[in-house]
Amino acid sequence: MGDRLRGPGAATGSQLRVPVPATFTPTVGHRCYTYRMQPTSRVFPDPPYYAVVFTSRLSGDDDGYGDTAERMVQLAAQQPGFLGVDSVRDGLGITVSYWRDEASIAAWRQHAEHTLARETGRRRWYEEFEVHVAEVKRHYGFRRTPDVSDEPSQ
Amino acid sequence: MGDRLRGPGAATGSQLRVPVPATFTPTVGHRCYTYRMQPTSRVFPDPPYYAVVFTSRLSGDDDGYGDTAERMVQLAAQQPGFLGVDSVRDGLGITVSYWRDEASIAAWRQHAEHTLARETGRRRWYEEFEVHVAEVKRHYGFRRTPDVSDEPSQ
Repeated sequence: MGDRLRGPGAATGSQLRVPVPATFTPTVGHRCYTYRMQPTSRVFPDPPYYAVVFTSRLSGDDDGYGDTAERMVQLAAQQPGFLGVDSVRDGLGITVSYWRDEASIAAWRQHAEHTLARETGRRRWYEEFEVHVAEVKRHYGFRRTPDVSDEPSQ
Repeated sequence: MGDRLRGPGAATGSQLRVPVPATFTPTVGHRCYTYRMQPTSRVFPDPPYYAVVFTSRLSGDDDGYGDTAERMVQLAAQQPGFLGVDSVRDGLGITVSYWRDEASIAAWRQHAEHTLARETGRRRWYEEFEVHVAEVKRHYGFRRTPDVSDEPSQ
């Protein structure tokens, strides 16, 4: 299953920008939901901060891959400037890690264990991968607030 | 399975920046691979361009979701400025779309079909989601070039 992790840097930041609340009045016969734009379950600082998108396919030789991937997530989460990470794989794998700035990304990249893992990845585990390092300009989120009733809600 | 799509805008751009080629000499007894940093199977223009990271969990009511998700990928791929998209879901879903600039992102967001899909998403399909709009500063890729032999390769 995909994993989500909130970094220590994220806990103290200001809340994720929340779009104007909105409600929906459904047509007759449909189940009613009141939905509001609310902060999601984790908090990012105000932009800018950074997202590193790592997209990959495995080679088929995954000996040690799972343990190392798990170790890397744990280790990354301890690094200064780490804000969070999401990762999902189903054939194609996408991992997006969030960092406060370029310096924290560089420091993590130079971490000895991370460097060894990346070298092993190229040598054994990955068929191909792409890395995109991007500066987050804006963000927003949504979380469902169910309000089920028989009457259309306001 | 995750899907990848190369946008029309990507085909004419310059090649993905390629790191300095490197080879690896394995220890005795291990299978040998020569690996080089090569362009991956799709091409992005030189940065900057944009990545939109959409991370979500479904509500459980997925009636129509699959068809609409597929339709949105096809439709997005026809929009001016579209560069590519990757999408994987396993409980958590991550979709990263790539765009030439903010204007193309805004135009896609205002597309009538896309707007309707987003509204339905909030009303029915999504438990929660996050959107991060980010400017790609740099990118690189790797693709394995297997060179299997009994002797360590140079």
